[in-house]
Amino acid sequence: MNYPNGRRSQASSSSPSIEKKSDQVVYSNRGMNLEEDIDETNTFYVTTNKAIIHKKPTPVQIVRVHYPKRSAAVITEGYFKQASTTDYNGIYKGKYIDFEAKETKNKTSFPLTNVHEHQVHHMKSILEHDGICFIIIRFSLLDETYLLPAEHLLTFWDRHLNGRRKSIRYDEITKFGSLIPFSYPARVDFLRVVDDLYF
Amino acid sequence: MNYPNGRRSQASSSSPSIEKKSDQVVYSNRGMNLEEDIDETNTFYVTTNKAIIHKKPTPVQIVRVHYPKRSAAVITEGYFKQASTTDYNGIYKGKYIDFEAKETKNKTSFPLTNVHEHQVHHMKSILEHDGICFIIIRFSLLDETYLLPAEHLLTFWDRHLNGRRKSIRYDEITKFGSLIPFSYPARVDFLRVVDDLYF
Repeated sequence: MNYPNGRRSQASSSSPSIEKKSDQVVYSNRGMNLEEDIDETNTFYVTTNKAIIHKKPTPVQIVRVHYPKRSAAVITEGYFKQASTTDYNGIYKGKYIDFEAKETKNKTSFPLTNVHEHQVHHMKSILEHDGICFIIIRFSLLDETYLLPAEHLLTFWDRHLNGRRKSIRYDEITKFGSLIPFSYPARVDFLRVVDDLYF
Repeated sequence: MNYPNGRRSQASSSSPSIEKKSDQVVYSNRGMNLEEDIDETNTFYVTTNKAIIHKKPTPVQIVRVHYPKRSAAVITEGYFKQASTTDYNGIYKGKYIDFEAKETKNKTSFPLTNVHEHQVHHMKSILEHDGICFIIIRFSLLDETYLLPAEHLLTFWDRHLNGRRKSIRYDEITKFGSLIPFSYPARVDFLRVVDDLYF
């Protein structure tokens, strides 16, 4: 991956994740993308026993596997599958917690094309079962990260289904969501917001 | 996959999962392996809105991806990673639920080599956070499936760490675990046992 000079103010110590096409790389001035930030945050939460939250592995349809003698099996043909649930779940203060995380380069709205229908259905089910459910949305060019409770996401999703706008306006997210403060070592310290909203 | 004649009393309608080396295939006379049975059970639970429980995808270390023009990205080199958590989690009656599932061809004991240390640590953490946590163990040749609460698994794990037996005896599992009845369409109706034990 190439980082333009001067755009990366902080060296990342995390191991690189899946290589991305250059047009998908997000150049946050924090030097980390949202997924990496949440991974570090969750690791901190697990290490300090504050919460047990993990990202689910990327779903892969494995088609062909080669078993070389005396070494590990190699997947030689596989495809990315669409996730049927959200990416993150776990337990916090005895409660089930479940969320999705997305970042956008858009500065004025969050396009709902970032979310899949079955993910929305999943979130609706989680709410019915009395779980804590939300989406973390980062406006990467504004460097702002919000927690939007799933209840509100569902309302905006229904508005979209009713043939109205296909996105959530930035000012709607600031109104119905909560800004997640940047901190250290919990880079996206969403449990602070969860404490305010759900406990 | 080859099935020996007469061993497969019931045709499986499920799509085949990852191809396994022949020595890993389990020939249950129900025609399905434990993972398939639990998948069908979870699908039934989700469909009837009884619980929202999903299997996590198999963790894959993706090393090389090919992006052909006008068609889907192909993973051309990947490796199986060891799971750092259990395979299944979700929400039931408002509670976080988390479990692992393993089958053995052994008739007299369940070898603890089937479970990884970080999975045991994960289970311990879940208990500390007041989640419901257990392991489902199938003795495939006996056609018996048990739910063993994580508390007991941890006790047997500690016994193993203390240099004593590396397995849990069959009679210990029947004593501290609960037989999961075979039913339809919930083939491994573990929530019946969960209701008895935890609610």
